[in-house]
Amino acid sequence: MMRAARFHDKLDIRIEEIPIPIPKDDEVLIEVEWCGLCPAIIPRKENPHIVTKETLPLTMGHEFCGRVVKMSENSKLKKGDAVMVDPRFYCSTCFRCETGNSNACLKWGFRGLSGGGGGLSEFVAVPESFCHVLPESVDLASAALIEPLAVAYHAVRKTGISDPEWKEKNVLVLGGGPIGLFVVVVLKMKGVKSVFVSEPTEKRRGVCGELADLVMDPMKENVGEKCRELTDGRGVDVVFDCTGVAPALKDGMDAVRYGGLYMNVAGWITPFVVPFVHFMTKEMEIKSSMAYNDEDFRETVKAFSEGAFSGIEKFVTSRVLLEDVVEKGLEELVRNKDHHVKILITPKREYIT
Amino acid sequence: MMRAARFHDKLDIRIEEIPIPIPKDDEVLIEVEWCGLCPAIIPRKENPHIVTKETLPLTMGHEFCGRVVKMSENSKLKKGDAVMVDPRFYCSTCFRCETGNSNACLKWGFRGLSGGGGGLSEFVAVPESFCHVLPESVDLASAALIEPLAVAYHAVRKTGISDPEWKEKNVLVLGGGPIGLFVVVVLKMKGVKSVFVSEPTEKRRGVCGELADLVMDPMKENVGEKCRELTDGRGVDVVFDCTGVAPALKDGMDAVRYGGLYMNVAGWITPFVVPFVHFMTKEMEIKSSMAYNDEDFRETVKAFSEGAFSGIEKFVTSRVLLEDVVEKGLEELVRNKDHHVKILITPKREYIT
Repeated sequence: MMRAARFHDKLDIRIEEIPIPIPKDDEVLIEVEWCGLCPAIIPRKENPHIVTKETLPLTMGHEFCGRVVKMSENSKLKKGDAVMVDPRFYCSTCFRCETGNSNACLKWGFRGLSGGGGGLSEFVAVPESFCHVLPESVDLASAALIEPLAVAYHAVRKTGISDPEWKEKNVLVLGGGPIGLFVVVVLKMKGVKSVFVSEPTEKRRGVCGELADLVMDPMKENVGEKCRELTDGRGVDVVFDCTGVAPALKDGMDAVRYGGLYMNVAGWITPFVVPFVHFMTKEMEIKSSMAYNDEDFRETVKAFSEGAFSGIEKFVTSRVLLEDVVEKGLEELVRNKDHHVKILITPKREYIT
Repeated sequence: MMRAARFHDKLDIRIEEIPIPIPKDDEVLIEVEWCGLCPAIIPRKENPHIVTKETLPLTMGHEFCGRVVKMSENSKLKKGDAVMVDPRFYCSTCFRCETGNSNACLKWGFRGLSGGGGGLSEFVAVPESFCHVLPESVDLASAALIEPLAVAYHAVRKTGISDPEWKEKNVLVLGGGPIGLFVVVVLKMKGVKSVFVSEPTEKRRGVCGELADLVMDPMKENVGEKCRELTDGRGVDVVFDCTGVAPALKDGMDAVRYGGLYMNVAGWITPFVVPFVHFMTKEMEIKSSMAYNDEDFRETVKAFSEGAFSGIEKFVTSRVLLEDVVEKGLEELVRNKDHHVKILITPKREYIT
């Protein structure tokens, strides 16, 4: 038996003893080291899930790394290998999958959201092809950040802007939460000319300020005007919307230059209303980005393994034992949202002092 | 003195006797042959206009061709030359103009909307550089259509899709009014693989049916489903929105494929609300197109002169004398909107039998 955080209902998440999964032929058994908490996505009460056919309760956690403890005879992995898990399900056969866009598969799902176990447990059985081996030089204590980094990586790649082109681009990132921050991280890795961040909370402005060229408080500053001042009156080339709220969108559409790109990375609950005069007179481009595909994940793992994101561990604002995931994790994220970037959870008592 | 249709107020357009304009050094005097009616754009009550400094009343008409009757000594034009007039004003010095995007000039205006005379009169003084000479093979009785064709040409060019690429594209055009129809015309000239039109009125479906591969009635058919049927279940590559209304946008966002392009060509009075699930899961691209720049106008004149739009005169649904522009023109367009594509006006009595 093993411990797992299982989602029964939005306000009913329980640490339960469940059987250790038995890996199928193409799967390996992973002993979880760390798993990131993602407050944005709470599993829908869909029973059973379209892909996994599993019903609630479901084990949570889709941002996790661990070590291989069991594999098949012909596996390329060996016991003790450190791996980052790509938590997605996709069909591999639809038009979108066949064209390399498995992130938008018509039957997509996520381990930790849709069934198939999850990172908020001691063990997970995962198809070998979804396990990315990490070199021993990588600290597993921060490797779980690869998952949200891959989201940011995909958004940056989806702009269609090449690495040399980024060196000429002025960028505004709306929102300094985990995804906004990681977009800044990826842009810096790409050698972006300059990146500004608009974020209303002080703590997050402080965090983003360590990386961004300028951080603005949209409650006190006119973001559009400020961006024009910083760009010879033209406006920024690219906006990344990592907020999903209307006032930020308004600022972003004002800040973007004629012919610029507005890239939405956020989930929207309220309607996505485009300010028409900006849209028309700027002849701008609006795009949306969702999750990541195989290539994004592989490249993010590679960049992480090569140290391209060194220093990123400082954005882990709390480390919590699996048993405390509700009180010190999920509830803490609601209570003190603005004081956190990323909370990581581990089932291993020896990691929490 | 000359006759001119002058805009005093929305419901107060008068045929008046005003002085024949005196061309400045860089201008030529044009005797108007034909001018198209555009119901969509009625001059704002902006007094004086930011560019021309002129106050109401203003002479109307921005889609016009004519013949040169007076020019300066050093002019390259000669008396009797047939010309199509690019009716725009722009500053030539702002960032947008300098990068070739004079259509989005920060100080844009239109002759016939913003002052500077207009095509709904006998004579107009126009800078020589805005006069495009037409060969005598061109029938001036349909040449005024070059202006709305340039709008469609710009929208098609702004997609960024090259001529060879169009041969592989399935396209949906929303709205079979003049602009929608002319987008179909331009796409056909580009050799598009297939173009479907969604249009609720029978008359316009009939007109578009002469060119499009398929015409749908969105009141009776599920446009998204139909488009998927026609494209192996994938959806169309590009949608042109020439309606500016929410139900059409909903259809278009449903019909476009994963990674497709939604190009807005319409003016919107109601909010432009993007259906978020389509936007996100399809990772689509949304763009807007406005008017045309120098290159678009020049190329449209060239294509027209070379006969690329031959047969287009059949879309002129009525020819009206200047004196009758209100009753048989503007009011007719409101009264029997769905029975017209383009109404052309002439100040020359001999052209109306």
